[in-house]
Amino acid sequence: MTTDYRPMWTKLGLNLEGHDALLGVLGQLYQSTYLSQKNRPAGMGYLDFVMSEVHGLRIKELEDAKATGRKVVGTFCVFVPDELILAADAISVGLCAGAEFGFEDAEKMLPRNTCSLIKSFFGFKLNKVCPYIEASNMIVGETTCDGKKKAYEIFKGIQPNLYVMEVPQMKGPQDKELLKSEYMRFKVELEKLTGITIDATRLKKGIALVNNRRKALYRLAALRAANPVPISGLDALLINQVAFYDNPERFTESVNKICDELEQRIQKGEGVFPKNTPRVLVSGCPMAVPNWKLPSIIETSGAVIVGEESCVGERGTQNLVEESGDTVDALMDAIVERYFKIDCAIFTPNEARLDHIKTLAQKYHADGVIHYALQFCSPYVIEAYPVEQALIAEGIPTIRIETDYSQEDIGQLKTRVEAFIETHTCPK
Amino acid sequence: MTTDYRPMWTKLGLNLEGHDALLGVLGQLYQSTYLSQKNRPAGMGYLDFVMSEVHGLRIKELEDAKATGRKVVGTFCVFVPDELILAADAISVGLCAGAEFGFEDAEKMLPRNTCSLIKSFFGFKLNKVCPYIEASNMIVGETTCDGKKKAYEIFKGIQPNLYVMEVPQMKGPQDKELLKSEYMRFKVELEKLTGITIDATRLKKGIALVNNRRKALYRLAALRAANPVPISGLDALLINQVAFYDNPERFTESVNKICDELEQRIQKGEGVFPKNTPRVLVSGCPMAVPNWKLPSIIETSGAVIVGEESCVGERGTQNLVEESGDTVDALMDAIVERYFKIDCAIFTPNEARLDHIKTLAQKYHADGVIHYALQFCSPYVIEAYPVEQALIAEGIPTIRIETDYSQEDIGQLKTRVEAFIETHTCPK
Repeated sequence: MTTDYRPMWTKLGLNLEGHDALLGVLGQLYQSTYLSQKNRPAGMGYLDFVMSEVHGLRIKELEDAKATGRKVVGTFCVFVPDELILAADAISVGLCAGAEFGFEDAEKMLPRNTCSLIKSFFGFKLNKVCPYIEASNMIVGETTCDGKKKAYEIFKGIQPNLYVMEVPQMKGPQDKELLKSEYMRFKVELEKLTGITIDATRLKKGIALVNNRRKALYRLAALRAANPVPISGLDALLINQVAFYDNPERFTESVNKICDELEQRIQKGEGVFPKNTPRVLVSGCPMAVPNWKLPSIIETSGAVIVGEESCVGERGTQNLVEESGDTVDALMDAIVERYFKIDCAIFTPNEARLDHIKTLAQKYHADGVIHYALQFCSPYVIEAYPVEQALIAEGIPTIRIETDYSQEDIGQLKTRVEAFIETHTCPK
Repeated sequence: MTTDYRPMWTKLGLNLEGHDALLGVLGQLYQSTYLSQKNRPAGMGYLDFVMSEVHGLRIKELEDAKATGRKVVGTFCVFVPDELILAADAISVGLCAGAEFGFEDAEKMLPRNTCSLIKSFFGFKLNKVCPYIEASNMIVGETTCDGKKKAYEIFKGIQPNLYVMEVPQMKGPQDKELLKSEYMRFKVELEKLTGITIDATRLKKGIALVNNRRKALYRLAALRAANPVPISGLDALLINQVAFYDNPERFTESVNKICDELEQRIQKGEGVFPKNTPRVLVSGCPMAVPNWKLPSIIETSGAVIVGEESCVGERGTQNLVEESGDTVDALMDAIVERYFKIDCAIFTPNEARLDHIKTLAQKYHADGVIHYALQFCSPYVIEAYPVEQALIAEGIPTIRIETDYSQEDIGQLKTRVEAFIETHTCPK
């Protein structure tokens, strides 16, 4: 970094000492996890740059935009429709945190038996090390799981600009109505925040922007069906992670460039790992930056990840919003239709997710599925059982991993993952 | 027991050996917890009888009623409106289980990090020791917490007559609509089950029955404000527990008789514990039979429990249904209004509960509040923090207890409870 961002960080109220410590760890981890990979696509240089400037240039962009009157909206969940945020000319940034930082402080307010993702955003906030939280004009929580729903009540005490959106728990007509009324309420809130009335033209533009980003991510996902696989699971995950806070046009363009390169690789039969490397689908909880623990273990244990059934992955991006409507109401309905299909474990029943996992495993020719759940994430930890049953019934090898953000269980996880890969895959 | 219920239990498919073991433990526990108490009201003889016949006579009543064509509906939550069940001439029984039984089997399907209440009803089902589950024609689950919501999906595999009702998570107009649509859906389901159309007359009768039961329980609760306290917290809890499965008319009559007796006691200045015994309000998770662990610890540590802010207590019974409506729609609206006020920790925000706890503490002249949460019950475990903050702000001494159904922590809990009572109460 050549620019000195310290004045900006100070202005945002960051604790520079803690922030330096966090950036130091992040930099080292990125070096050892990402930059040490072999055969990376050249297009990943863009992601390397984004990551090197994740608390620098991108925050400066947010601050510059705010100086022109635009607003920044921080979110924690794929149920919050970016289309509406963009339609209000605001900037959407993902706030989920993926590092064990400030957990001791978080545990003064939250039970120890709280999932790492929640403790992490509390820890980041309490220690003033997240410029995205501090730069946000409005922060959107949601009632997805008990942990987040109840933790937000406490969070609001330290983050007064928190707004909470309700998400339904079933898929009946009354639930779709509830989701629509919540999206309408959110629209009004965004209009209040930005002073902009979200009309059909703005909404269509927002929808197109987000759809284009999704299309680029689908294109990337589809290319991973090739053998050899043209991009590592770690790199693909990073792209999905960065999707949550990068500028959407620039990001979409960069992903499409990477896809052009991957197509050439496939044509030439080039891959990031040797042909017939055992292929794994990872399914379960989202992985926020820099939670690369499990993918890193998998891809240094002789396998390659070919897909993510995750909010940071295809659960989060599947299905486009229908763009043909011409009125606000028709477009809002189209947005509701799309988001209502998300097969998150917060829904009951949630058969669609089991089907989606099986479909992805087939589509990407996975040899097995690794189900990943954050400890104390009840929806995914409990749903791991029906997922396992469904995969066993299909003859798809599977293993359940439950872990947190600590580094202590890496050895044990590696042993389990290696054994799974050795047992359930054979050279083709 | 003089009657041989074994043929009935066999017919219900119970595992007699396991069931004998369970009844043996229950009988011993009842003896040591309840019958060993001093100065009990004579009216508690009714409860002693009910408990001695809890798997006998009451089950026979259910089976006899079923033989005449009536249906039995088993429930797990105070959001399931008994008024509708009774209006369909069906019998409502509570199914929450309060004993560590069959947990090993439950943990084959559920994560170990699941609350004891859920593991317990799984354990009872898997071991075929609960005649109420086996006697039920329909079992109603609900989407209150992540644990139950997701566990019911697995439970349905072993209990196909399970029906799941959605409960909202916030208190906006859209949530009241959702609750109403769910109650209408439940009404239709009950009509299908029983073949009875729920008209206004039937609904009014169901509402009156449940209101009368509530009124008797309020009367009981109010009498506990006296000093000395005329009834132990253990006995009052038992009455609230039995409310969930006893015949409502008979139960209401028996509670009113006990209240008559308690009024006489109060007039004479008689109590179950000496005057000025330290007074405690218990607030938090429900306690299902035979989960008497914490109340027993409290009342053998020099204090008396004067109220329960709990589903099995005043959170479950507060507020009556307005009876004045004359149409099904008006009466359904009245039911929705009443249930929508329940201040369960599943709602966000849930300020009403904090107010209710403070009100109860004042009303019953509590010296302190013991917040009780089942381990891994995220809504109550997380809400314990704001509850504590609110009570500290009011100068009300409070302690947070987190436990499960095991007996292992009794010594430790007793030490903490004794210290709390000694520190925060002084002889008046």
